[in-house]
Amino acid sequence: MRDTSRDGLRNRIEKYVLSGFEPFWAFINARPALARIVNRLIVDNAVQKAPARPLALSTMAPYSSWDSLMDRTWFARYLPPVDQGGRPPLEAVAALFKLRPAGPRLSERSTLLFPSFAQWFTDGFLMTSEADRRRTTTSHQIDLGQVYGQTPAVTDALRLRSEAAGRKGRLKTEVTDSGEWAPRLYDAAGKKREEFSAVPDPVHLPAGWPAEKLSTIFAFGGERANSTAYTAAINTLFLREHNRLCAVLEQAEPGWDDERVFQVARNIGIVQLIKIVVEEYINHISPYWFQLLSDPRPCYTAVWNRENWIPVEFNLLYRWHSLVPEGAVWGGAAIAMADVCFDNGPVLRDGLGAAFDSASNSRAWQMGLFNTSPMLAPVELASIGQGRTNELASYNDYREVMKYPRVTRFEQISGDPAVVAALREVYRHVDNVEFFAGLFAEDVPERSAVPPLIGRMVAVDAFSHALTNPLLSPHVYHEGTFTKAGMASIVGTRTLRDLAGRNGGGDGVVSMELARPK
Amino acid sequence: MRDTSRDGLRNRIEKYVLSGFEPFWAFINARPALARIVNRLIVDNAVQKAPARPLALSTMAPYSSWDSLMDRTWFARYLPPVDQGGRPPLEAVAALFKLRPAGPRLSERSTLLFPSFAQWFTDGFLMTSEADRRRTTTSHQIDLGQVYGQTPAVTDALRLRSEAAGRKGRLKTEVTDSGEWAPRLYDAAGKKREEFSAVPDPVHLPAGWPAEKLSTIFAFGGERANSTAYTAAINTLFLREHNRLCAVLEQAEPGWDDERVFQVARNIGIVQLIKIVVEEYINHISPYWFQLLSDPRPCYTAVWNRENWIPVEFNLLYRWHSLVPEGAVWGGAAIAMADVCFDNGPVLRDGLGAAFDSASNSRAWQMGLFNTSPMLAPVELASIGQGRTNELASYNDYREVMKYPRVTRFEQISGDPAVVAALREVYRHVDNVEFFAGLFAEDVPERSAVPPLIGRMVAVDAFSHALTNPLLSPHVYHEGTFTKAGMASIVGTRTLRDLAGRNGGGDGVVSMELARPK
Repeated sequence: MRDTSRDGLRNRIEKYVLSGFEPFWAFINARPALARIVNRLIVDNAVQKAPARPLALSTMAPYSSWDSLMDRTWFARYLPPVDQGGRPPLEAVAALFKLRPAGPRLSERSTLLFPSFAQWFTDGFLMTSEADRRRTTTSHQIDLGQVYGQTPAVTDALRLRSEAAGRKGRLKTEVTDSGEWAPRLYDAAGKKREEFSAVPDPVHLPAGWPAEKLSTIFAFGGERANSTAYTAAINTLFLREHNRLCAVLEQAEPGWDDERVFQVARNIGIVQLIKIVVEEYINHISPYWFQLLSDPRPCYTAVWNRENWIPVEFNLLYRWHSLVPEGAVWGGAAIAMADVCFDNGPVLRDGLGAAFDSASNSRAWQMGLFNTSPMLAPVELASIGQGRTNELASYNDYREVMKYPRVTRFEQISGDPAVVAALREVYRHVDNVEFFAGLFAEDVPERSAVPPLIGRMVAVDAFSHALTNPLLSPHVYHEGTFTKAGMASIVGTRTLRDLAGRNGGGDGVVSMELARPK
Repeated sequence: MRDTSRDGLRNRIEKYVLSGFEPFWAFINARPALARIVNRLIVDNAVQKAPARPLALSTMAPYSSWDSLMDRTWFARYLPPVDQGGRPPLEAVAALFKLRPAGPRLSERSTLLFPSFAQWFTDGFLMTSEADRRRTTTSHQIDLGQVYGQTPAVTDALRLRSEAAGRKGRLKTEVTDSGEWAPRLYDAAGKKREEFSAVPDPVHLPAGWPAEKLSTIFAFGGERANSTAYTAAINTLFLREHNRLCAVLEQAEPGWDDERVFQVARNIGIVQLIKIVVEEYINHISPYWFQLLSDPRPCYTAVWNRENWIPVEFNLLYRWHSLVPEGAVWGGAAIAMADVCFDNGPVLRDGLGAAFDSASNSRAWQMGLFNTSPMLAPVELASIGQGRTNELASYNDYREVMKYPRVTRFEQISGDPAVVAALREVYRHVDNVEFFAGLFAEDVPERSAVPPLIGRMVAVDAFSHALTNPLLSPHVYHEGTFTKAGMASIVGTRTLRDLAGRNGGGDGVVSMELARPK
């Protein structure tokens, strides 16, 4: 068993109260007015574990300058840079992530839909610049850029731009026997189609990718949305929902032009995404019995309601490669993950429902050390390297800034003797453990999907980032912005299943939860 | 006398309490701990007169879209656009600003330093795009861009960039018999100097401007900082202060490089400017006996601490052209204002002290209708036109959004029969009065420098804009950012006179107050 003596008294009490007493929490969950009050307390407590924005530093410089406080092409950072001299060789740390010969540990809690959604969602705002791994190309906002693109030129290429009835506001789509899809980015010969020249090619697309797979790649706003058939399926779901919302808006507001229908449908789509993020995804991650709500009102008076600026630490802690299994079940048959990378053939053939069915019925791996598929080993190595390029402080320093006591023994990080032994061999002293390695070395608590420090940092950003979206601010979040029909659609959206049900995403299970709901 | 029946009960009580009881307020002003508490209440009350950011709309579109909530090249706006049909001819409104044949009314309160500082200061963040008068090129921040430029290329051209002792962090300067000055932008023949090709030419510089005047123009970051010898003098003061601070920092931190000395000197300079803005300039505008403090702590928990975004209404209400006199006293002799436009010859000849002495001993005009110098009449016309281009709502609508009751009679706006008669002739009904005309039609209250609605809107932005500067935020505003010596310099700076005294700005009166301090 792990030595819990450095978990911190307050942290232990919070965990005890929030992870126990199921009937008490069920009572609260069932009473909306009471639940909103409790939600405010829990959300506020969660966000206040970290220093509020604006942070003093960015990755631009080791001191605050006017430029560093303004230029959001650099990541924010929680702690100042420290000298990386004396760190163990990169390869020794990367070896901590190497899959055990005995094979993977499987998640007790999550289906493949969980890492697929995490990947697709965070690819919308966690971008590292390819040219300089201390910089970012993010908008720092949840804006559904995966669907709409990050620049006006991309958005423009993806829009139908028609004032004709039944076409206003729509994104371009093609209807096949299996449903409605984004248009293809490449033609049958694998050549990029002229009208999508502004649209990004998929990142990390292997050179010489075969034309028959290339021709299944969708013209998506996000440069990583085609990474797997699962991320493409989620993107397709939000694309279909956009066009569905356009039809709703066109009917409700016949006087609106193409531009307004488009913009308001996008607004509704973004808020629906935020609802799913909090009410399905974050509740899946959380080990609490209390069901968190996507109510923005706790932010309206919160001291942590300050403009978003993605910290580099947040970018790194989201590298959940160990969750990704090597294979899945698709239509009852086993497939290799590699078979659905940069290849939307299976989903085009079998339909959107098949992809959600596959993701919901395949098991994710467990997050942690010694559990990353060999195909993702190079990505772990790059992540460790990015931590060093950004001169990140140690795991213990980050525990402290996030209100966990510093650990004094490796046994306080993990109860797994193999993890403890490996950490000791690589780092010698617990103060030497790097941020990235420490994050994943921690044991995953019962009924949680992620280890404690990751869970805490994800919660900080989930609430302070998602709920402070300008669309949820007091002068904007009302029927005047979204229309009555739009607000009804927002209210009616809590899970991916809600979206799938109304967009031909299948009527089977659509779930991130492996077993029964907690 | 003006009909005060629509001033509003709460407004009248606040005015009564804050503008009366001088001994009571003197008692509070003399007790710093008490004054800080009262300051928090007054600042918070002042800012809460207006809707807090983020506002629902920008000048981009009449509805909230993701683009309109993100794209800060458009102005924010307090009220939605309204149709401008039925507005009186532009020229009829412009005639309301025309100087009376009897001549100007002079301010009872302000020297020429007040409009000069207002002009220089607001030129740092109130920029209308020349190409589209609904858009802006501002950074939306108080950042001393007048001194440092708005782009890295301009900043770079103005910096010395030397690692030599005694030169680190410095801006380029030239020392003449009369003191230290920015380098000249043009050579003796009037040709722009190659090294400053990135530096903007002065805006509205008349074509064919004579070489002997052109050659006195300084290479300044701000495209309007050379407009008059007075704005150039204020810019020079902050330039000299920058280089003085660099010397202080270089001594305190010998290990710092050019870049860090530059950046930290700029940080200190920006905070010193904010202190002067609140403690000298806003206190000059305010009719209150309480001396407002530039304490940022009230913002740390305020619901109005949201990212700055300049509203178009704020841009327009700052067109204080009627304050600008046609002449001044310089070195005991009368000069015409035109003699110090785009011509720094007098200040180069007589020194910085002469400019501050002139500004502090010349009288400003009174703000209001029928009081704008003919040379500025075209600028008033353009301002009225900009209000229409942006489809602004009426004066009464803006009274309401700023928590003043709507007026029902022209006599409730002004007690001046000529103003009332002219408004009635141009607008027929009080509900028709435009925002821009109404702002300046109001009577200036006793001991105030501006009319009430302008005063209220200036206070909203002064506090919610200046005090939420990231340099004043909790993780940044401390000795770790500014150094001990830097913090001491900030503490020792409350007025332009403080800056002038340590930078050869003369030892005479440096004051925006005409007579004895209120």
